[in-house]
Amino acid sequence: MIDIYDLIEELFPICRSITGDGVRRTLELVKKRIPIQIHEVKSGTQCFDWTIPDEWNPREAWIKDPAGKKIADFAENNLHLLGYSIPFKGKISLDELRGHLYSDPGRPDAIPYNTSYYERRWGFCLSHRQLGSLAPGEYEVYIDTTLEPGSLTYADMLVKGKTEKEIFFSCYVCHPSMADDSISGVALCTALCDYLLKRSGNYYSYRFIFVPETIGAICYLARNGGEMKRNVYCGMTVTCVGDEVEFNYKRTRSGKHALDRIVENILKHSGEKYKVHDFFLPGSDERQYSSPGFKLETGSLMRSFYGLPNYHSSADNLDFVTRRGIEGSYEIYRRILEAVEADFKYLNKMPYCEPFLSKYKLYDTLGAQVGSGSDYKKKILSLLNYSDGEHSLIDVAEKSSSCISDLIALVKLLKEKNLLE
Amino acid sequence: MIDIYDLIEELFPICRSITGDGVRRTLELVKKRIPIQIHEVKSGTQCFDWTIPDEWNPREAWIKDPAGKKIADFAENNLHLLGYSIPFKGKISLDELRGHLYSDPGRPDAIPYNTSYYERRWGFCLSHRQLGSLAPGEYEVYIDTTLEPGSLTYADMLVKGKTEKEIFFSCYVCHPSMADDSISGVALCTALCDYLLKRSGNYYSYRFIFVPETIGAICYLARNGGEMKRNVYCGMTVTCVGDEVEFNYKRTRSGKHALDRIVENILKHSGEKYKVHDFFLPGSDERQYSSPGFKLETGSLMRSFYGLPNYHSSADNLDFVTRRGIEGSYEIYRRILEAVEADFKYLNKMPYCEPFLSKYKLYDTLGAQVGSGSDYKKKILSLLNYSDGEHSLIDVAEKSSSCISDLIALVKLLKEKNLLE
Amino acid sequence: MIDIYDLIEELFPICRSITGDGVRRTLELVKKRIPIQIHEVKSGTQCFDWTIPDEWNPREAWIKDPAGKKIADFAENNLHLLGYSIPFKGKISLDELRGHLYSDPGRPDAIPYNTSYYERRWGFCLSHRQLGSLAPGEYEVYIDTTLEPGSLTYADMLVKGKTEKEIFFSCYVCHPSMADDSISGVALCTALCDYLLKRSGNYYSYRFIFVPETIGAICYLARNGGEMKRNVYCGMTVTCVGDEVEFNYKRTRSGKHALDRIVENILKHSGEKYKVHDFFLPGSDERQYSSPGFKLETGSLMRSFYGLPNYHSSADNLDFVTRRGIEGSYEIYRRILEAVEADFKYLNKMPYCEPFLSKYKLYDTLGAQVGSGSDYKKKILSLLNYSDGEHSLIDVAEKSSSCISDLIALVKLLKEKNLLE
Repeated sequence: MIDIYDLIEELFPICRSITGDGVRRTLELVKKRIPIQIHEVKSGTQCFDWTIPDEWNPREAWIKDPAGKKIADFAENNLHLLGYSIPFKGKISLDELRGHLYSDPGRPDAIPYNTSYYERRWGFCLSHRQLGSLAPGEYEVYIDTTLEPGSLTYADMLVKGKTEKEIFFSCYVCHPSMADDSISGVALCTALCDYLLKRSGNYYSYRFIFVPETIGAICYLARNGGEMKRNVYCGMTVTCVGDEVEFNYKRTRSGKHALDRIVENILKHSGEKYKVHDFFLPGSDERQYSSPGFKLETGSLMRSFYGLPNYHSSADNLDFVTRRGIEGSYEIYRRILEAVEADFKYLNKMPYCEPFLSKYKLYDTLGAQVGSGSDYKKKILSLLNYSDGEHSLIDVAEKSSSCISDLIALVKLLKEKNLLE
Repeated sequence: MIDIYDLIEELFPICRSITGDGVRRTLELVKKRIPIQIHEVKSGTQCFDWTIPDEWNPREAWIKDPAGKKIADFAENNLHLLGYSIPFKGKISLDELRGHLYSDPGRPDAIPYNTSYYERRWGFCLSHRQLGSLAPGEYEVYIDTTLEPGSLTYADMLVKGKTEKEIFFSCYVCHPSMADDSISGVALCTALCDYLLKRSGNYYSYRFIFVPETIGAICYLARNGGEMKRNVYCGMTVTCVGDEVEFNYKRTRSGKHALDRIVENILKHSGEKYKVHDFFLPGSDERQYSSPGFKLETGSLMRSFYGLPNYHSSADNLDFVTRRGIEGSYEIYRRILEAVEADFKYLNKMPYCEPFLSKYKLYDTLGAQVGSGSDYKKKILSLLNYSDGEHSLIDVAEKSSSCISDLIALVKLLKEKNLLE
Repeated sequence: MIDIYDLIEELFPICRSITGDGVRRTLELVKKRIPIQIHEVKSGTQCFDWTIPDEWNPREAWIKDPAGKKIADFAENNLHLLGYSIPFKGKISLDELRGHLYSDPGRPDAIPYNTSYYERRWGFCLSHRQLGSLAPGEYEVYIDTTLEPGSLTYADMLVKGKTEKEIFFSCYVCHPSMADDSISGVALCTALCDYLLKRSGNYYSYRFIFVPETIGAICYLARNGGEMKRNVYCGMTVTCVGDEVEFNYKRTRSGKHALDRIVENILKHSGEKYKVHDFFLPGSDERQYSSPGFKLETGSLMRSFYGLPNYHSSADNLDFVTRRGIEGSYEIYRRILEAVEADFKYLNKMPYCEPFLSKYKLYDTLGAQVGSGSDYKKKILSLLNYSDGEHSLIDVAEKSSSCISDLIALVKLLKEKNLLE
């Protein structure tokens, strides 16, 4: 099995953006683990209402204060440079400089994450505390970046199952050094894809999508939206899954997909704290997948919700994201997959009254059996009763207040006893 | 704009009943503001299971106590005379008199409101405290009223819109000097009608109905019920809207009309305290409009609910009803109207992914836009996402936890940008 | 009327099991009250996946301790003998004996109820306290039972109504001396059947089923399931109805039958404490009636829920079951029956506006009638408004927050006035 946390540690230092070599290096590290296909789309390409922008590649960037000391050095933390900064070299006063500095008064010690993809600007991000301590005088600014025609890079991979009906997982590869937002999702998708490649008998096909957020998802849909519209059963956007904060599940657009009920059932019986949210705008790429032209049912299972204290800042780092956090999320995702793969309508082959369970070694022969009974008996009887061709496994789980994961093993057992099909 | 509170002050002193000159004077004051049509229906006319009663006109009424002092003088407060009292002159003992006196022990200082429309009686209403202070002896009673064939008076008015589909507002004009019950509704309907007459581009037609309660509404439906059954989209009975007590909304009979959801959405985002009640019997004229033969979907947005302390007594006066109260109610009604007029299913003209909003100056170009975002952005994205031809504006408001009133302006903006139709 | 508590007292001492003379004596006592039909089914008969077991008849059973003192004497309390114990005579050590003794550490003073229907064993049940006090030494065991081919005994009875559509009541006759579990249900069914035999104009047919639990119900369905599947409107399993603990209603499998709503409506307005539970597995014979091959909608109205402290032990005795408890349950069942018999969709014969109720002496002529009004008026107006051919009586009850039992009398009154049909 892939070591997810190792992958996060490898991905963390890279400076990514919506285009450029950071994305390419990121996808290469993924490709070492799973056989994704990498695609390039030229700047200027039209994707629905959008145009692929020029490619951006930063090399070096810093400010020197009047005393000649480097501050806001890109080499130290790539969040210091405003994403998509144009090149600039020169000496300017503090007053002039302020118009190019971004800080977050609400989180005075963190460097905020900021970008200007669609308007040409240069700028630096720094902690509000540092901003307040700047002395008057002349500052030297050095930004060595290129922003010129090139391409947007993304990757995908299809794990074929028995049916063309597919489930997709989408993550984004465009954030610089933040650990939870963006790369925890990339790492989890990589591990999940590896699991599915090794799992036998997949019923659904699985599509994994690694794209820059928004523009990448839009570009991906411009190229693959028709096929996805035909085949997609449901999907998930995967991000913010590496911390140890409670789970937050954002439902699909309809809120009524079996996926929603399965995720909620598994969370409910997981012992983990969690909250469930109806679909809402804005959000991440579920916005594009769920747009009215596509209406792909896309859920979003996160931990630390976007908007929480560490979000979009230097505080979203390898202290915040833990091995325990990411592996716990992986396990929940894996159980969701297993449940979706087992969520069919089964048929009780002995539908008239209950079968004589003692005969099948499914029942204790001693004891007055009315009413009382173990949780095990409850689950077996519930499976038999509701397997009438009208109830799916998640229906049975809900009706019997059981975890769907527990029922999967019993379905197998009852099939072996020839009681279920 | 009509001064609603002035109209209430003018209407307050008039002694109204279900027939008679009080109703006529009331409707004349309304007609000074809006061009209503006034109708007369002869006593004895059959309306479904009911018969229009004789017309009642009171002129003078009082009791003189053994010391010759006038008590319960109609000239002082018209609630003193039992509604529909027959004429009577004579001297009677206190014991005999008691059989004709009505008081309310639960509200010892208030004169209760009481009537005897369908059984011939005479009587006086007085405060329970006054009743208790009456000395033994001979009392002189003087009631100068007429109760004889005449007619029942009502008025209506149709403000034509683009469609024959209509929304009606019904108020009642039959209560003597009480300010909240009955005349606050008359005044609000007058102002609302005036607003609609001046508003351009009304989609719906609007019917305003000014009738004596119960018998008047039944008479109105006997004459106009067929047409209303064909055309009515929904309606409201308007009463008890002049005080400053919390809002109370009584839902339509089905409880599922868009009107219900719009009223509740606007109340929820209004900052006002309010309660919502399922349709119930009894009530006011929504009983007749919602009877099984008509089933007109009729909601009822009130403030002080019928049954509250001041209800049906001399305490329902111009101290209880305030300018602030009636104008606040008017504003809520106006916003309901605007929302019903805008509650259509819109169509996103760029349904594949989100449009490139920066192009339309609808988006800030700076900042990492994932997840975060203003309430404004949330509303625009929600409107675009849910405008798929399946969701009406109230659906979008509910799904995005927005006030429908706020969405109306954005619909206009997105239409101008050619993003919505 | 049958004295239900007398019947419970007569039934209590009998040692019943799933077969044998105890069942026959029980059914004979019922047959003295109502004309049930008693049936015998031979051992070895196949019923779906089950086989009728050999017939068991206990005569005498005891253990003598090393001092020669009888303990766990069947003659003293028939719960002492493990149900379906095979015969045994011999002297054995305490250690060997322990393997045949059953107690319940959670209820140290009670003799637990235990059986071994489908595996041949012998054993005794005794209080955990008594078990702990046994001295080492040689014990003499004496069990005089027969377990040999015979038959299973059950009874039923059909009270024919105007339609073949039927409602069934099922109780079980297989528990030894416990008062609430099993025989309170037998007694209540007997009284209910007697009530229906004397009631005139039954719309539904009523089936009463007296069977050993599980195997008896399965055997009954093997013989009558086809007919029941055709005719059954709904049914109830009746047990644990003699104590004074709060009511517990377990819904039908669908949870949406009118029976569910009627039971809940009557409980809600009864002033009794109660809880409502969705259908769940396991339980009693509703498991068989609700199996996917039959899907008979079967509710279960109990008091002390299975699983409570006294359940399946010697504490479930004539102290726990009271005259007040069983008669209270009977009254609730009777009212449920009356409501199901009256739960039709009525038609307001004067659907345009309200009728002029004063004319029918249904209305007070004095008083301003808007809004205020008695509970009586509310019920009459609600009945008239909702009797539009779309709402059944339970719909009206729910919509007007009335007890359906109260509406039944008003339906009769309005029919007499020719206002309803």
